[in-house]
Amino acid sequence: MIYLDNSATTRPCAQAVEAIRNALCEVWYNPASLYEPGLRAERLLDRTRANAAGLLRCRPDEIYFTSGGTEANNLALFGAAAARKKRGNRIVTSAVEHPSVLEPARALEKQGFEVVFLQPGRDGIVPPQAICDAVTPDTILVSLMLVNNETGALQPVAAAAQAIRDVGAPALLHCDAVQAFGKHPISVRELGVDLLSASGHKIHAAKGVGLLYCAKSVVLPPRSYGGGQERGLRSGTEAVPLIAGLGAAIEALPDPAQQLPRMQMLNRYARQTLAQTGLITVLSPADASPYVLSLALPGYRSETLLHFLEAREIYVSSGSACAKGKPSHVLRAMGYTDREADSALRVSFSRENTEADVDALARALCDAAKKLRKR
Amino acid sequence: MIYLDNSATTRPCAQAVEAIRNALCEVWYNPASLYEPGLRAERLLDRTRANAAGLLRCRPDEIYFTSGGTEANNLALFGAAAARKKRGNRIVTSAVEHPSVLEPARALEKQGFEVVFLQPGRDGIVPPQAICDAVTPDTILVSLMLVNNETGALQPVAAAAQAIRDVGAPALLHCDAVQAFGKHPISVRELGVDLLSASGHKIHAAKGVGLLYCAKSVVLPPRSYGGGQERGLRSGTEAVPLIAGLGAAIEALPDPAQQLPRMQMLNRYARQTLAQTGLITVLSPADASPYVLSLALPGYRSETLLHFLEAREIYVSSGSACAKGKPSHVLRAMGYTDREADSALRVSFSRENTEADVDALARALCDAAKKLRKR
Repeated sequence: MIYLDNSATTRPCAQAVEAIRNALCEVWYNPASLYEPGLRAERLLDRTRANAAGLLRCRPDEIYFTSGGTEANNLALFGAAAARKKRGNRIVTSAVEHPSVLEPARALEKQGFEVVFLQPGRDGIVPPQAICDAVTPDTILVSLMLVNNETGALQPVAAAAQAIRDVGAPALLHCDAVQAFGKHPISVRELGVDLLSASGHKIHAAKGVGLLYCAKSVVLPPRSYGGGQERGLRSGTEAVPLIAGLGAAIEALPDPAQQLPRMQMLNRYARQTLAQTGLITVLSPADASPYVLSLALPGYRSETLLHFLEAREIYVSSGSACAKGKPSHVLRAMGYTDREADSALRVSFSRENTEADVDALARALCDAAKKLRKR
Repeated sequence: MIYLDNSATTRPCAQAVEAIRNALCEVWYNPASLYEPGLRAERLLDRTRANAAGLLRCRPDEIYFTSGGTEANNLALFGAAAARKKRGNRIVTSAVEHPSVLEPARALEKQGFEVVFLQPGRDGIVPPQAICDAVTPDTILVSLMLVNNETGALQPVAAAAQAIRDVGAPALLHCDAVQAFGKHPISVRELGVDLLSASGHKIHAAKGVGLLYCAKSVVLPPRSYGGGQERGLRSGTEAVPLIAGLGAAIEALPDPAQQLPRMQMLNRYARQTLAQTGLITVLSPADASPYVLSLALPGYRSETLLHFLEAREIYVSSGSACAKGKPSHVLRAMGYTDREADSALRVSFSRENTEADVDALARALCDAAKKLRKR
C-alpha cells in the first residue's frame, strides 16, 4: 500500500494511538471533576497545550482545543467578525481558502459584511500587492491560509500582517494553518497573526481534534456555550483521548525546520521523476510546500486515474478530500478550465513516504497512459 | 476503586476501546476519500448512525454526529431559533437545564427573543401545567431535558409536546437527553420531539462525541460551515474513531428497558442503606431516574465530603462535574439555600455498580460523620 494522500488525512502514529488508549483505559475521568483522577485528566490537556504552544511559539493559555480545523476556522471567522464589528465592516480573504473559511466568509457576507475574495495568480499565490490594495482602514478581519491544501502554495501571510499595520486597520489576522502546522516552522509572533487554526489528523493524530491559537490580547465571543470549558471560549467536556493523542503526535514530530529539507528533496525527486513520464503538468508553484504536489494529466479524467491507481493500492486524491466530486474551486480560481481541473491529481506526502513510493506512482501513471483511453 | 460519578463521565467499555483502536490503526482513512479504504471509514459512520437510530427509533439519516452533548444542544437551540424566528419570538425552557441549554437560551434572550425559564417544584420537576401555561401561539421553541443531570428528575417532555399541539404553536421541541440516552427507553416519535441531544461519554463511549437527532421534517441552518459533512448540517472531517467507538458502545448496551429495573433495585437499595446512616436527606424525587441520586448531608460541606471519600477511593460529585466549584443552579431553583446545596452529593450509577459499592459508600459516610467536624 502506497499512501500519497496525506493532505486528506494521515495515519495516526504509534505514540498518538498509545496516548489515546491510555486516556480511554486509565485516565478516563472528567477533567472537571474535583478529585485527583479528574486532575490527572486535566493534566493530559495541559501537556498537549504546552506542546502545541511550543510548536507555535506562543503561550499555552493561547491554545483552545476544538473538534478540528473546521470548528477552529468557524470560531475564528465568526468570532473575529463579532468582536470587531463596531470598528468596520470589511473582511478580506482569498478565493483559494478551504471551504471552512470560504463558507463562513460567505455567511458573514449574507449578514451584511463586505467580503473581498482575493484572486490568486496562475501559480495559486495571492499577490502581496493585492492584499495591500484590499486592506482598508475599515477592514476588521483578514483570513489567509498558510499552505493551500490543494496545491501547497504558500500564501503571503506576513505581508497581510504588514498591510494591516501599514494602514492602521482594526483588523484581526487569521491564518488557516491546517496544512502547515507541524510541517513548516511557525512562530505566531513573527507571522504577525492574532488567530491561527490547526488540525490533529493532518499530523498523525486522530480525526476529531484541532485547535485555535487566539492571542492573549484578543477577546473572542464563544460559539459554543455551556460549562465554560476552554476558559469559556469553547464549552463542552474536552475530548481528552483525542487531545492527549494530539499531544503525543506533536511530541513525535520531527523538528519542522529539520524535516523540511528532506521533504523538499522528496518533492524535487517527484517533480523530476513524474516529469520524465512525459504525462504530467505540475500545477503547484515552484516554491510550494513540499508536502503537496498538484499535477494534471491532460487527456485523462482524475477520477478514472484515481481508481486505476487504487487498483494498485496507490492512494492519491482528485483535488481535495473535502469536496467529494465537486470541481476544484482552487484550480478554477487559478484560471484552469473545469476540463483541465478534471485531470488534476493531488499527491501529498508525509514523513513516512520515500522515493520508492514516487517510483511506484510514476510506473503506475505510465501504465495508466497505456491502458486508459484518452478522452 | 468505587466509581459513583457516572453522570459526570463513564469508563469506556472494552468494545468502544477496540472500535477506536481499529479506526485509528486500520480504518484511519478520510471518509470523504473516493477510494475503497475511505468508503470503509464511511461505513463505520453508517454503522453508528444505524445503531443510534435503533436506540432512538428514528431513521439513520435523522442522526447528525457532533463533538458532544454541548455542541448538539447549541446546534439545536440556535438552529431552531433561526429556523423559526419568522413565526414567533418566544422560547420556553426550564431553570434546571444543563448550562449548554441555559447559556444558549440566555444568548438568544440577548438577541431579542423572549425566553421563559420555568421553575421546578421542590422535587426538581417542572409542573406540566406550568408548561401548558407558558406555551403560547408565538412560541417557536421548547427545550426540556429528559433526565436532570444533578437530581435524575424526569421532566414531562411528552406534556410539552402535547402543549405545543394543543395551542397550535409553531414551536420545535428539543430534548436534552444526555442523561437518558441508552439508559431509558426513548422513542423520538412517542416522545414527540423534533430535536434530541445525546452524548457518547455518558454511555461508556469516549469524551468528544455526541449526536443530534433532527426530524426529517425539520431544516436547521448549520453553525459549522465547510466541507458539507453530515449532510451540510455539521461540516468538518468526522471524528471516525470516536464515532466508531460510540457505535460499539451502543451495541454493548443492555436493552434500556431490561436494565432499568435492575438499576431501580440498586437505587432503592442505596436510598434505604444510606437512610439507615441517619445522615442523609434525599433530594432526588421518588420517581427519578435510578441512575442519579442526589443527597444532602446537612452540617457537612460537600467538597470536604468529596475529598474524604476520595481518600477511600470512592468517587462521587458535589453537584455536577460541569460547574467546577459553582453553587448548583438546579438545587437553588428547587428552593434550597446555598448552604443546603453546599452539603449536596451526587451519586450516579452505571451498570458496573453493585450493592457492595453502596455499602462501601454508606460506611465511608458514617466514618466521615465521626471524623469530620460539623460546621
